[in-house]
Amino acid sequence: MTREDVVQRLKDRAREAEEIIRRYLPAEEGFNRTVAEAMNYSVLAGGKRLRPILMREAFRLYDGTDEAALHPFMAAIEFIHTYSLVHDDLPAMDNDDYRRGKPTTHKKFGAGMATLAGDGLLNHAFETAFLAFDFRETDAGQADVVRALRILADKAGINGMIGGQCADLKAEKEESGVRTRDELIYIHKNKTAAMIESALMIGATLAGAAKEDVRKMEQAGEKIGLAFQIRDDILDVEGDASTLGKDIGSDAKNGKLTYVSMYGSAQAREDVEKLSEEAIRLTAGNGDERNFLQDLIEWMITREL
Amino acid sequence: MTREDVVQRLKDRAREAEEIIRRYLPAEEGFNRTVAEAMNYSVLAGGKRLRPILMREAFRLYDGTDEAALHPFMAAIEFIHTYSLVHDDLPAMDNDDYRRGKPTTHKKFGAGMATLAGDGLLNHAFETAFLAFDFRETDAGQADVVRALRILADKAGINGMIGGQCADLKAEKEESGVRTRDELIYIHKNKTAAMIESALMIGATLAGAAKEDVRKMEQAGEKIGLAFQIRDDILDVEGDASTLGKDIGSDAKNGKLTYVSMYGSAQAREDVEKLSEEAIRLTAGNGDERNFLQDLIEWMITREL
Repeated sequence: MTREDVVQRLKDRAREAEEIIRRYLPAEEGFNRTVAEAMNYSVLAGGKRLRPILMREAFRLYDGTDEAALHPFMAAIEFIHTYSLVHDDLPAMDNDDYRRGKPTTHKKFGAGMATLAGDGLLNHAFETAFLAFDFRETDAGQADVVRALRILADKAGINGMIGGQCADLKAEKEESGVRTRDELIYIHKNKTAAMIESALMIGATLAGAAKEDVRKMEQAGEKIGLAFQIRDDILDVEGDASTLGKDIGSDAKNGKLTYVSMYGSAQAREDVEKLSEEAIRLTAGNGDERNFLQDLIEWMITREL
Repeated sequence: MTREDVVQRLKDRAREAEEIIRRYLPAEEGFNRTVAEAMNYSVLAGGKRLRPILMREAFRLYDGTDEAALHPFMAAIEFIHTYSLVHDDLPAMDNDDYRRGKPTTHKKFGAGMATLAGDGLLNHAFETAFLAFDFRETDAGQADVVRALRILADKAGINGMIGGQCADLKAEKEESGVRTRDELIYIHKNKTAAMIESALMIGATLAGAAKEDVRKMEQAGEKIGLAFQIRDDILDVEGDASTLGKDIGSDAKNGKLTYVSMYGSAQAREDVEKLSEEAIRLTAGNGDERNFLQDLIEWMITREL
């Protein structure tokens, strides 16, 4: 598959994922209308929908067929990703005015409403994921949904994404910044990789994959997330504002130490390459031919480098 | 039961509830230590543990026996209540420096970490509640846990607590404030009553109560919450700083219209009385004698008036 083919197919997949996500957005009506508007604004402000797409590809890799229970989880993971961005952009956190070229949620709705919108999205993610129980009526089916829910909560929580944000915020607020390789890897693995692990693991779980295959997805997700974040560090230093749609070097300006500032560009690129190869190996499935998940991983990690 | 007996038994119940809640608090270690510290500080900063206590009493009212699945839900509802206070106190929201006589979470850990601690508590609430699946192995048992989870998420979300906070924040930020009785009742019902409904409904559900009994608990919770909030409005106007441990009239000073400012003290007291009687009637259960839940409701609503 050529690079253009991958990009085209990814666009199609993103459009499909967005159609699915839209079905689970809250209605904008009643006295709680404003928080629903702020939630919907945040979710629909763009984004590549990579996590729901990865979830669906993992589902297909393990021969999942009935997608009814998968769809609520696709929406749920995007809601969690979105809430994390809304809160991360707040004045009390990164204080960013723009994301993807649009005013951030707190610039448009105020910091109080943006706080509530983030809370609303996290809560709504679970409300949405619980809908999956309605589509899996057998014991085994219900057990798969429970397993998927536990992955969703675990990887988004303080032993996952929030843990990474805590370490990141702490390093940023302290004079010394990130001090060790362990700390930097912890941040990248949890702030970014955890939600990619979650996406792949949930897709496989809902397809009924074996425990060791779900574990493979976890390992692949970790490598993808780490590579993706190192790539992001490289782009943040060398990137172009129009491509990224955010302030160039904003992380660096905030005094954050990154993988690049710690290891240099050449080593960072080499590590990205190695992680990418490992992730592609782990997502081979049973087929002989290269699958779209593998193409997607390669594209995610190597684009614009 | 005398008033002193109720207060003594409530103290015992609160101590028991706190022992249960402590078991589910996160460990304070690793690179995410600070967010765990902020979460634990917030949960352990005091509070009457009314929601977990109400949950347990409803469980007992419907002859629940095996508490193993109940305990994670008792902790979960307290985590959700606590996160809502942490975020509500933030500078971007009510900007309160003290709660229950102690520095608020953002005064102690900074607004960024307090935002993460709130997020962490909401996410941890679901992680904790999912543990209940391990203690209900039959199909019917698992179905009760799913029902309880849905109540938990629904009542905490934008059609419950967050919806109430949205309307409250919006009214506060606008010159006009709360304009109609419908809007005021919406705020009280959702910001306060929803989580009390949740507590009673989950207790009954995990005890295996019939659908109509769970619905009764919902109605009782609505009346308790509404009465409790009107009572709070009365105390906010007339109360004593040392008893409440927060700034007197802080709501009124913020320009919020309350039930009292809208209807006057006399009408407010009359409505509290009526709601209290209805709630006590709804929680009679099958016994002839007055139960502790009824004593507790009376105490909650009429104390210090």
